[in-house]
Amino acid sequence: MSEALFRGYEVAPWELRWHGMDVDALQRTESAFAVSNGHIGLRGTLEEAEPRGLPGTYLNGFYEQHDLPYAESGYGYPEEGQTVVNVTDGKIIRLLVEDEPLDMRYGQATEHDRVLDFRKGTLARDTVWSSPTGRRVRVKTERLVSFTQRAVAAIRYEVEPLDDDLQLVVQSDLLANEPIESDTRDPRVAAALESPLVGEYHHAEAYHAVLVHQTRRSGLRMAAAMDHKIDVSDGVRTHIEAEDDLARLTIAVDVPKGGRLRITKFLAYGWSAQRSVPAVRAQVEAALAGARQTGWKGLLAEQKAFLDDFWETSDIEIDGDPELQQAVRFALFHLLQAGARGETRALAGKGLTGPGYDGHAFWDTETFVLPVLTYSIPDAARDALRWRHSTLDKARERAAQLGLRGAAFPWRSINGAECSAYWPAGTAAFHVSADISDAVVRYLNATGDDEFMRTCGAELLFETARLWVSLGHFDRRGRFRIDGVTGPDEYSAVADNNVYTNLMARRNLFYAAEIVGQHDDIARRFEVGEDEVALWRKAADAMLVPYDEDLGVHPQSEGFLEHDEWDFEATDLDFYPLLLNFPYFDLYRKQVVKQADLVLALHLCGDSFTPEQKARDFAYYEAITVRDSSLSAGTQAVVAAEVGHLDLAYDYLAEAALTDLHDVHNNVRNGLHLASLAGAWQGTVAGFGGLRDHGGRLTFAPRLPPQLRRIAFRLTFRGTRFQVEIDGESATYHVITGDPLELAHHGETFTVTAEPVRLPIPAIDPGPAPTQPAGRAPARRRPKDA
Amino acid sequence: MSEALFRGYEVAPWELRWHGMDVDALQRTESAFAVSNGHIGLRGTLEEAEPRGLPGTYLNGFYEQHDLPYAESGYGYPEEGQTVVNVTDGKIIRLLVEDEPLDMRYGQATEHDRVLDFRKGTLARDTVWSSPTGRRVRVKTERLVSFTQRAVAAIRYEVEPLDDDLQLVVQSDLLANEPIESDTRDPRVAAALESPLVGEYHHAEAYHAVLVHQTRRSGLRMAAAMDHKIDVSDGVRTHIEAEDDLARLTIAVDVPKGGRLRITKFLAYGWSAQRSVPAVRAQVEAALAGARQTGWKGLLAEQKAFLDDFWETSDIEIDGDPELQQAVRFALFHLLQAGARGETRALAGKGLTGPGYDGHAFWDTETFVLPVLTYSIPDAARDALRWRHSTLDKARERAAQLGLRGAAFPWRSINGAECSAYWPAGTAAFHVSADISDAVVRYLNATGDDEFMRTCGAELLFETARLWVSLGHFDRRGRFRIDGVTGPDEYSAVADNNVYTNLMARRNLFYAAEIVGQHDDIARRFEVGEDEVALWRKAADAMLVPYDEDLGVHPQSEGFLEHDEWDFEATDLDFYPLLLNFPYFDLYRKQVVKQADLVLALHLCGDSFTPEQKARDFAYYEAITVRDSSLSAGTQAVVAAEVGHLDLAYDYLAEAALTDLHDVHNNVRNGLHLASLAGAWQGTVAGFGGLRDHGGRLTFAPRLPPQLRRIAFRLTFRGTRFQVEIDGESATYHVITGDPLELAHHGETFTVTAEPVRLPIPAIDPGPAPTQPAGRAPARRRPKDA
Repeated sequence: MSEALFRGYEVAPWELRWHGMDVDALQRTESAFAVSNGHIGLRGTLEEAEPRGLPGTYLNGFYEQHDLPYAESGYGYPEEGQTVVNVTDGKIIRLLVEDEPLDMRYGQATEHDRVLDFRKGTLARDTVWSSPTGRRVRVKTERLVSFTQRAVAAIRYEVEPLDDDLQLVVQSDLLANEPIESDTRDPRVAAALESPLVGEYHHAEAYHAVLVHQTRRSGLRMAAAMDHKIDVSDGVRTHIEAEDDLARLTIAVDVPKGGRLRITKFLAYGWSAQRSVPAVRAQVEAALAGARQTGWKGLLAEQKAFLDDFWETSDIEIDGDPELQQAVRFALFHLLQAGARGETRALAGKGLTGPGYDGHAFWDTETFVLPVLTYSIPDAARDALRWRHSTLDKARERAAQLGLRGAAFPWRSINGAECSAYWPAGTAAFHVSADISDAVVRYLNATGDDEFMRTCGAELLFETARLWVSLGHFDRRGRFRIDGVTGPDEYSAVADNNVYTNLMARRNLFYAAEIVGQHDDIARRFEVGEDEVALWRKAADAMLVPYDEDLGVHPQSEGFLEHDEWDFEATDLDFYPLLLNFPYFDLYRKQVVKQADLVLALHLCGDSFTPEQKARDFAYYEAITVRDSSLSAGTQAVVAAEVGHLDLAYDYLAEAALTDLHDVHNNVRNGLHLASLAGAWQGTVAGFGGLRDHGGRLTFAPRLPPQLRRIAFRLTFRGTRFQVEIDGESATYHVITGDPLELAHHGETFTVTAEPVRLPIPAIDPGPAPTQPAGRAPARRRPKDA
Repeated sequence: MSEALFRGYEVAPWELRWHGMDVDALQRTESAFAVSNGHIGLRGTLEEAEPRGLPGTYLNGFYEQHDLPYAESGYGYPEEGQTVVNVTDGKIIRLLVEDEPLDMRYGQATEHDRVLDFRKGTLARDTVWSSPTGRRVRVKTERLVSFTQRAVAAIRYEVEPLDDDLQLVVQSDLLANEPIESDTRDPRVAAALESPLVGEYHHAEAYHAVLVHQTRRSGLRMAAAMDHKIDVSDGVRTHIEAEDDLARLTIAVDVPKGGRLRITKFLAYGWSAQRSVPAVRAQVEAALAGARQTGWKGLLAEQKAFLDDFWETSDIEIDGDPELQQAVRFALFHLLQAGARGETRALAGKGLTGPGYDGHAFWDTETFVLPVLTYSIPDAARDALRWRHSTLDKARERAAQLGLRGAAFPWRSINGAECSAYWPAGTAAFHVSADISDAVVRYLNATGDDEFMRTCGAELLFETARLWVSLGHFDRRGRFRIDGVTGPDEYSAVADNNVYTNLMARRNLFYAAEIVGQHDDIARRFEVGEDEVALWRKAADAMLVPYDEDLGVHPQSEGFLEHDEWDFEATDLDFYPLLLNFPYFDLYRKQVVKQADLVLALHLCGDSFTPEQKARDFAYYEAITVRDSSLSAGTQAVVAAEVGHLDLAYDYLAEAALTDLHDVHNNVRNGLHLASLAGAWQGTVAGFGGLRDHGGRLTFAPRLPPQLRRIAFRLTFRGTRFQVEIDGESATYHVITGDPLELAHHGETFTVTAEPVRLPIPAIDPGPAPTQPAGRAPARRRPKDA
């Protein structure tokens, strides 16, 4: 069969399909095929559990603690780390065909397809398997994590004997403390994760079972429950049992050729730091009752309706590059999965698709992911920011520990406490607090959500503003300096006056002051005095933004442009990513950039640069940026598009969008890169669409690369849903629902209404294309099947 | 008795005496009372082993390895640490008086004196102890580690019943794997050190025994052997036994009132990374045979002769401050003990007096300790530099690993491999390689040791010169920059163009080039080409030395003077040392200095500054230097004296000299601070004597503070031993042995001969005294019993 020859993802506009069986590819497909609602995440493992890359069942916010070891400790070093826990696995459904276990490593899979459907919101599988002795069955499965019933997942499992009557035995499990491999070198971290859950309660009866566990050290409690619906002609025997770490429903039945065994497995998960065993048990049993009541078809229908609405709001159409079209929808789908039902929990760097980064959330969320959510499903953006707000006490404690005022948000965390064990790239990266403020301002501009502003937003802005004035100082010449901090680029650290950080801090201070100016009552509530606001404004006005007049370029940080050049010609391409082959000390002291830093400032603080500065800065940093970070390509796409290098922007957009599908960084097995997925949106909407949101108004500067015929995307702003459609010559704007909006198109203000308005795209001559370090240019994008 | 009232050190010119028994003070007195010859070190524990602070028997270079843990690891991080091992303890001699063990915690010590004699080179004890039931004995002991027989230590032990005939039982032990407390937080380090020695061989016969052990992981092998001579009237019964970790000679005898039991215990130690069990056993048994042959009196006589010669060469006399006189001799004595017989092993930061700093050697050795040895016992300086030379391969490997050429010496090590687990204050402190070169140049200037130059010195200079040209670069304006490194001050890190580092590197490059110019053959042997030397000279000539014209001050590193001031007024004095109460990030980004850095440059590279610059720089840095490091006071004394603040210099000299006797840093229990002890010499000789050795010639600029009547010190230079004697008005120079020398006195060249030449001291008006951070001025020195 032809499928047996082609193994890999197939290009299609609304789904991600993998043809054929490839054990070695399981780890990476498991991440891509993960289903999640932001609360529960299930990696795309096969139902029979093996072969597998990494099992993975995650609950947002559920983690174990462990000591952080230091050979040389220091004041303020975090003493405890947090790591996401692989919780009780409810995905497992094993099958015995006569006396032979279904295992894709044995016998032969003559057909094997897996499909993640972006509109249905399910992962489906269709396998025809011939056992080692030649018995053939078709196994069809479909699974979902419900967007509408937050605690619920469900699996439809169907087996059909193809040639003979067959005895089938199915074992449907809840399995805790699955053995997993760990990458960690630290024996204590490995020990903490080897068997993280302590059984507290188990119960099984009829077709349902529940297990309750608690982590050893973080003290979090979780429950998992399952129930089943069995459809088969007759003669079924079942047995259910439960012990500490396993609950199992065993189903035995003789199925005639052409007959079918169909099982629906309903799963419910819940966890709490405070609730008792009976309470968390009750929680999951209630959820299960709801799921049973809704039924499989009901869950499917709810899922579809939820997704219809999402795509209606948020779809991006790309004509001229079907693979890119697929990748962008894949990205949007996973961003939705990560953020939809997070609800005041962290939105982790990998979402709930894998154990990478220990399950921690970073600044990526606010800077890359939240813009997508803000203009697509703003409630999800709000919830993510509420999580930050819920951690304010920890951020204030951290600031106090560091000798600062206000709030210092962590570089990496699950529960809000700093978990970074390397301060030059963690604690010193204070920009995370400005990034959070920026996300708050963006959300407030996009929604006018007064309640959020009063309950969360203002306080976040005030406390971060307080951080900045305590972190910086006025120098002899009256300039406000922020010394000894680390910007976004992880190949530099602990430098003075990082342009990105200073500009973002300036904006933070400015908006905090603006809110005080507009809302006396809020200022009073948070005890912001006149002197304090005056100081915020003074610091913002005096903020130092270093610039090299000689070169006509902004240094990433003070002194950067004096540093030695990296010898790219002499750097073997096998030595990338550089951090695995060169010491930090060498990377930090040379002009080599891991990821957009000054270029990110060109995007997010573009109103602080002239077009000429942007062009020169972009060209300068292009030549020294190696893109060893998955965060970079999307931003480079955005700025390349702005300065008119549209081919290059297209290449970067494709790299960002395909990061995980092409496994560019060779680590997708640990989970998807949410920020890269967001980069697909950024590259399209902020890149070719030219979307900017400086000063509370949306502006566009659309331009397409010659390879693309048309891009259309939809945004939600202040309750108005509108579409932007771009072709080679013009852009057409119209409101889908809601009030008219004032926008700008290439600098010209206009009002968009339900009536499409078509505006021409002015020509641009960007001059010669910038160069990249030897061997580090993005792949030239040649659209397939365009 | 009056002694019972006064507990503490008594001031005396040639000894350190502690009166009375104070269990709580044992830990610190054990360090001060340590006896050592640079190869073997015995802490000053009581013979009966308990009560004790820390037992401690050390062999220079003998260490155990352990993993270095990192919560976040990075390329080039050292994976293995090294820690000095407490080896088999041969100091132990226990006493049973009738049925009561001698234990100073029970019964009563009516007399108890311990004396470290600087001229005899022994630690003596005189105790009258009354047992809980009132039996009185006098116990007199004396111990030495032989300067002349490197592998040998010996103890004379005497018991005298004072009131009655008494049965005495003495147990003389070799005890391996003594239980010790460890400060480490890391369970793996603690485990490695809990029981580090694996017994390989034991043997006992007659009065002698030997134990051979190997470390578990570093694979080093050591042997300890003991033999005894017993003097007692008659009726003595002895028994000897040995097992893996213990060998014991038991001596039982009835001693009449007025009689005496006298035991001489000879100890021998040896270790090897390569030799077999029989070989190391043979080595210690041979040493023991030599010691027995010499006998106790012979060992005492050799020790005395060795010390007579040392004091003849190296004594410093101070009139007007007896405590300072004692402290300076204490310092010289311990520096001798640390360096005398190191012989191609590291000279550790604590010498062999305690387990502090894990027994590692640092740059302190070359910068602070070796100048003392160079002008006192130059062979010891040579041996210490030979150790560095013996680690060149490891330093070259490290440089290669870091992407550099030449040799990068470790920040901390026992065997030459980098053990620093915190790179910003370890690897980045490249100045250590310049410090080593500087010590080489100083030694060569002082001795003209051509053989050392050919076998070690030139290669050390060349390989470090290669490091500098690969570490720095020429910038757009042709200046040679060394970016991203850490200077001496540990409250700054990873900065550009540290003045100290750049000046020391410049000197390193200059002298490397000079040697090539003078010795074609050597240049050829080490493959130094003309282009390479030209590059060294070019880099030296173009070396960037930042200077702030506005302030008229040198920044410690580029940008330093722009940084925020530390709020000293708001810093509680309990918060010192600051590193225990403030994060590195905050210390690094502010103008707060832990220890002399730019001020050390003013001393060591004084020929690169004008007198006016020195005065301004010193005043500027005085105001921000908190002296949280024991390395600082000596250097501040030197520069304070040079710029004319003689009272301040006197205060700093006293602080340096008394660091350990007064336990200024509250950690002398872990060992003495060799660099502070060296600071006592520096403050006297380079401070009030004004000794400098720029350019191969010794110059002096003597000046006394009003509190001191006279200082005299002796130096050895190019084989000539000469004395400098300073009083309030003049300095008198004369040669003791050797040829005349050309020196300078306050800028005037003169020739010193056997005929004393007396030269007047010019007046100086230093202007107002500089200030120190609030609460951090040195204590005002008021000499006692002057």
